Amino acid sequence: MLSVASADTGAPTHPDHVLTVTGAGLVGSLLALYLARRGHAVDIYERRPDPRRAGADAGRSINLALSDRGWRALEGVGIAEAVREVAIPMHGRVMHDVHGQLSYQPYGLPGQSIYSVSRAGLNRRLLELAEAQPGVRVFFGQQCLDVNLRQRELHLRDIETGREQHVAFRRLFGTDGAFSAVRSAMQKTDRFDYSQRYLEYGYKELTIAPTPEGGWALEKNALHIWPRGRYMMIALPNLDGSFTCTLFFPFEGEESFAALKTPADVTAFFQRVFPDVLPLMPELTDDFFHNPTSSLVTVKCFPWSFDDDVVLLGDAAHAITPFYGQGMNAGFEDCRVLNELMERHGENWELVFREFQQLRKPNADAIADLAVYNFVEMRDRVADPRFLLQKKIEGKISTQFPGQWTSLYSQVTFSPDVPYADAWTNGQRQDAIMARLMQHIDSEADYDTPEVQELVAQELARAN
Amino acid sequence: MLSVASADTGAPTHPDHVLTVTGAGLVGSLLALYLARRGHAVDIYERRPDPRRAGADAGRSINLALSDRGWRALEGVGIAEAVREVAIPMHGRVMHDVHGQLSYQPYGLPGQSIYSVSRAGLNRRLLELAEAQPGVRVFFGQQCLDVNLRQRELHLRDIETGREQHVAFRRLFGTDGAFSAVRSAMQKTDRFDYSQRYLEYGYKELTIAPTPEGGWALEKNALHIWPRGRYMMIALPNLDGSFTCTLFFPFEGEESFAALKTPADVTAFFQRVFPDVLPLMPELTDDFFHNPTSSLVTVKCFPWSFDDDVVLLGDAAHAITPFYGQGMNAGFEDCRVLNELMERHGENWELVFREFQQLRKPNADAIADLAVYNFVEMRDRVADPRFLLQKKIEGKISTQFPGQWTSLYSQVTFSPDVPYADAWTNGQRQDAIMARLMQHIDSEADYDTPEVQELVAQELARAN
Repeated sequence: MLSVASADTGAPTHPDHVLTVTGAGLVGSLLALYLARRGHAVDIYERRPDPRRAGADAGRSINLALSDRGWRALEGVGIAEAVREVAIPMHGRVMHDVHGQLSYQPYGLPGQSIYSVSRAGLNRRLLELAEAQPGVRVFFGQQCLDVNLRQRELHLRDIETGREQHVAFRRLFGTDGAFSAVRSAMQKTDRFDYSQRYLEYGYKELTIAPTPEGGWALEKNALHIWPRGRYMMIALPNLDGSFTCTLFFPFEGEESFAALKTPADVTAFFQRVFPDVLPLMPELTDDFFHNPTSSLVTVKCFPWSFDDDVVLLGDAAHAITPFYGQGMNAGFEDCRVLNELMERHGENWELVFREFQQLRKPNADAIADLAVYNFVEMRDRVADPRFLLQKKIEGKISTQFPGQWTSLYSQVTFSPDVPYADAWTNGQRQDAIMARLMQHIDSEADYDTPEVQELVAQELARAN
Repeated sequence: MLSVASADTGAPTHPDHVLTVTGAGLVGSLLALYLARRGHAVDIYERRPDPRRAGADAGRSINLALSDRGWRALEGVGIAEAVREVAIPMHGRVMHDVHGQLSYQPYGLPGQSIYSVSRAGLNRRLLELAEAQPGVRVFFGQQCLDVNLRQRELHLRDIETGREQHVAFRRLFGTDGAFSAVRSAMQKTDRFDYSQRYLEYGYKELTIAPTPEGGWALEKNALHIWPRGRYMMIALPNLDGSFTCTLFFPFEGEESFAALKTPADVTAFFQRVFPDVLPLMPELTDDFFHNPTSSLVTVKCFPWSFDDDVVLLGDAAHAITPFYGQGMNAGFEDCRVLNELMERHGENWELVFREFQQLRKPNADAIADLAVYNFVEMRDRVADPRFLLQKKIEGKISTQFPGQWTSLYSQVTFSPDVPYADAWTNGQRQDAIMARLMQHIDSEADYDTPEVQELVAQELARAN
């Protein structure tokens, strides 16, 4: 066996069969588990300290919505059931208007839900399972300063000691997130297409406290939305009875983070636009001024691989905005797809990486665009009675013609066999159909008129 | 006066009034000249060795087309006339078909030309003029490894000695080109939008030799094009009787750089598609296999400034493809515009930088898109008789209605008062008008029919 020597005598050497992963976040730790289950030795380098010994990471979302693509990837390593025990199902959206009036929109058919999970809890779980595999080693507190792609070397810095070292790799999997050091090195290679685009919105996490009895102050099994046109707040339930709220809000302008300068400003603003929730947020002004205002970026790039040496997965390859709740799910799906390709092509890495990026790139682009599209839907359209009526009509079509009409949301969220790109294409076709139908519909009852029934039948016949 | 200390004792210190420029290419040296003429002390750091002592730079174009925006910027520092003496006017395009048949298309009105200039010669000239100014210092062979924006420090490496140093700056002008180290540092700041996109085409420079008598083997005062649909070659005259040809060609595919593997492949290909020029290229196969195949990138980013400390100009802010011959001209125009803003706002740098990027960004985006658009025109449309007829009709309108119809090409090339973005908008409107008119026109003579004359008058009345 050929041993690849390290440039630094103090560094571990890596024989050819060891796979190297940068980043032990959600995608990196799930990937390591997949790789280890295939019999590979895996070394993971992670910038942050061991999350089991340190506090939560500032600026990362506290909870996440796990949906069917994510579940399917977790099933692939046999841990879906364990995760489901600590996940809270959310059956639909509860919209809160400025008067505290609620409306409800189910996410899918009865029994279909998305699940609120703790980012930190899920990450710890995946890491524990990965580390329990023989041959898996995780090195925490190792910041990747640079990657030398030609010499196949990581330049690492120990965040506690400041000591720098060069570590050789033979096969590198970059799962080091939206600001990936691996991708940053690839960006400097010839003919690497790259874009990073920020929204003019930031987000800030806030907290709804549990009730004095330790229960949930709002409907537990729902995702709550306060749609306000140009901005919005959402809330996902936590196991301890609290909700984590996220305010998506312009950085600048009349109503913006920049405009809310004092605790009194914040309280008055919440009183005016989120009056029902203000009494449930005792820590509001503290949270507001202590928690970071984070930005929202979409990263697209291509290729995702460098020769048969390096491949990017998850946010490192395709960072997206959170508005479809699909960032983690898309990254987990990357792991599942890569695993299937390894199953098919064995250690023909060049072929595995090439097919991986060809399969995944159009889907990553589609979910990136869908996420931005869904921001408009969530912050604005869900407050529009016509839009809610349209969603109800879509639900009726779906029930009346089983299998012939699956909403865009359901295709993205509950249909892991439908690639994101196909969902997006289908969704645009459905939008055109609904625009035609809604010209004839003013109420739910109109759906049952012979005229509309015939139109629906015609549209479906044409579409299928 | 406050002196900003360097982090490295060996490095020069920079008092507050010294301006720092990275990159002494065409834009950097012209900018330094503008700044020096305003009375500023300027330190320039350039990666390459002194071009007056070293050979030409591999992978950069040998000659360039200078047009009115560039001339205007050169006039601003009083050096236009000196440059004009070593520039070769090109009055129009000469198209060469596969049988060696020629057709001609003037660029503008009589007397309007673009000018072939030597990149190296122009750069040397600008550098000499800049260095002759009191207070200007140029440090060659200084590679910028990194820029610390917060601490306002360049991390430089001397390419001869390998010695690294940190140099403080107070005000930094990044003119360090398409792969700018300054921009690379800015890319890591929050909410910095960035994209780099490569064409699937590369380019390679080749040479048409002078005649035995030392003259030009093709019409001297023209830009030559061999349009071949999916690819093309162009040639610009040099002072020594040679032409520098540039082959724009797909990287991969049936007809591509990858497909031409041997000297025999190259000769056979040129014999088939560029037969008239093959006998004029005695060094063809040597050039082909020794000269680099370079890639074609478009870089867009925003913002172009970091606080009131740093600003990007030229390719560092907006690298574009060469197909409109506007890369250098746009960069020179940056210098002129920045100078006008300094004239207006004095040393209110925050205001100067803010207005500069607001004014220039839409124009930089427009010329980037125009350049890609013009690639299709040059490699494909100029070989189409209908397109050439349309250009002749446009010429007739322009002559018949002076001041009422300026072609898109003329707006971009000969109208420095028209911003690129306006030219692009006007050009799209003209395209729509010409599409309507050309439905009634099959020959030049048709232009004079009463029907067409009335249509033209109507369209112009509507447009103006």
